[in-house]
Amino acid sequence: MSDVAEDEHLLDLMRTAAGTVEVQLERLLSADTQEGEKVRPKRVLNAMRHGVLNGGKRFRPFLVLQSADLFGVPQTDAIRVACALECLHCYSLIHDDLPAMDNDDLRRGVPTVHKAYDEATAILAGDALLTLAFDILSDPKTNDDAEIRVQLTSLLARASGLGGMIGGQALDIEAESRTPDEAGIRLLQSMKTGALIRYACEAGAVLGQASLDQRQMLVRYGEIIGLAFQLSDDLLDVVATSEQMGKATGKDAGAGKGTLVGLHGVEKVRAMLAALVAESDAILIPFGERADILRRTARFVAERRS
Amino acid sequence: MSDVAEDEHLLDLMRTAAGTVEVQLERLLSADTQEGEKVRPKRVLNAMRHGVLNGGKRFRPFLVLQSADLFGVPQTDAIRVACALECLHCYSLIHDDLPAMDNDDLRRGVPTVHKAYDEATAILAGDALLTLAFDILSDPKTNDDAEIRVQLTSLLARASGLGGMIGGQALDIEAESRTPDEAGIRLLQSMKTGALIRYACEAGAVLGQASLDQRQMLVRYGEIIGLAFQLSDDLLDVVATSEQMGKATGKDAGAGKGTLVGLHGVEKVRAMLAALVAESDAILIPFGERADILRRTARFVAERRS
Repeated sequence: MSDVAEDEHLLDLMRTAAGTVEVQLERLLSADTQEGEKVRPKRVLNAMRHGVLNGGKRFRPFLVLQSADLFGVPQTDAIRVACALECLHCYSLIHDDLPAMDNDDLRRGVPTVHKAYDEATAILAGDALLTLAFDILSDPKTNDDAEIRVQLTSLLARASGLGGMIGGQALDIEAESRTPDEAGIRLLQSMKTGALIRYACEAGAVLGQASLDQRQMLVRYGEIIGLAFQLSDDLLDVVATSEQMGKATGKDAGAGKGTLVGLHGVEKVRAMLAALVAESDAILIPFGERADILRRTARFVAERRS
Repeated sequence: MSDVAEDEHLLDLMRTAAGTVEVQLERLLSADTQEGEKVRPKRVLNAMRHGVLNGGKRFRPFLVLQSADLFGVPQTDAIRVACALECLHCYSLIHDDLPAMDNDDLRRGVPTVHKAYDEATAILAGDALLTLAFDILSDPKTNDDAEIRVQLTSLLARASGLGGMIGGQALDIEAESRTPDEAGIRLLQSMKTGALIRYACEAGAVLGQASLDQRQMLVRYGEIIGLAFQLSDDLLDVVATSEQMGKATGKDAGAGKGTLVGLHGVEKVRAMLAALVAESDAILIPFGERADILRRTARFVAERRS
């Protein structure tokens, strides 16, 4: 296949996966109570749905599904883990958008949760989605093996807590008043956006009961994807126009935040992205053709235009 | 022993347990990174410490430890579960205190987290404590048995999520504009404060690998304690003076919120509390002398004066 045809094929796969994830998220966020619940208060539930069921690209869930597939785990057995991760990701967006944080009124062209509802509801909806992520992972419906469920839970808690995503957000706030150096930027990004993407890939290996070696490969693949995702995002921020992105651009630079693009320039960062793609290719060699989609995904993320 | 001497003995036990819990919480909230963490950003960590290490009574942890003791589980094997629950409880207080929620400046006589730090930090500190609770429970250090860890995780997620504590908070906000009837008040309270207290008692049974029957008894005991705790709190709100409580009283009534005391009056509620104590005594009979402290705890909660 040509590069363009391969990209089209990958986009098709991503859209199909996103559709499957959407259906499952819709079920998890339905008004039906589950065991141990008497009622699901409507306003907060609707706010959770607003923050989650928004037609997102479901990139992290896609990574979970594809990483699991690498070890022969069928999509039906990985979908709940994919959704748990998406719930956690969406909680972080809801809280990040709050007036006390980034104070954003719009996300993907629609009002943010605290705008569509109110601040108290947005805080609770975020809290509830965070909690739901751990509810889903620890539920026997997710996997028969308690050891697998508890590992998935523990890894997600570590990836999303003070030493992971939340800590990255904290460093990001600090960075507003004092621009970090390169090591600081890399640390911030590996925590703020990298940790969950790495988790997505490691979760597939855990579900597939991969060997320790294989698991380490998926962890490194996840780190590569996280880094490539962030670098291409930073590039887009410099290069893309507002129309292409559908959100304000040049914002990070305007806020004086350090990025590797700001530090090294566009050309150097393009070279870094190419090196990451090459490393991903090398890591995935032992998996043969089965890893074609993950291989293509790395390339796609590094070269994305939107 | 006389009632007074028994109360003193129980208070001693509670204070000793609180001290042990405090030491363990201090460790869990230290600046030391654990596996999978590169850094723990200081400001949010300090905000978490501010919200947790405040000399609280540690009532929920005490219930975990005592319920576990009922099944012969040593304190050292239950302490991490007790601390996870306390982290979760403290996150809920931090978020409840936020300007968009209850807008409280003081808690236990010291500035609330968003006052001592700032709103963004308070939101993140709450999120991080919530996440830490699940981190602790799913960590192999908590218990060798993955099945026990994952059950403790799942039950806490259910107790604290939209169908539990968060949902209760949502109902409480709704109640500000429309006073609920008795069933509504009971539902709200069973979710907002009851769910975590019930969890504390059930967690002991899970740790002790209790039979299903025994576990059901502990669940009901937890419900009784939760209800008694709430009723005595409502009573104190009517009866106590500001000095005795160290916080604003008459507040719930002032805000027009329904309580069972408001609905039925002080005398009726005292009778309800006596009935709860009698039910607790009956439930605990099969456990014999081993349940003395839990039995005394129910009485103490029902009759508490502060």
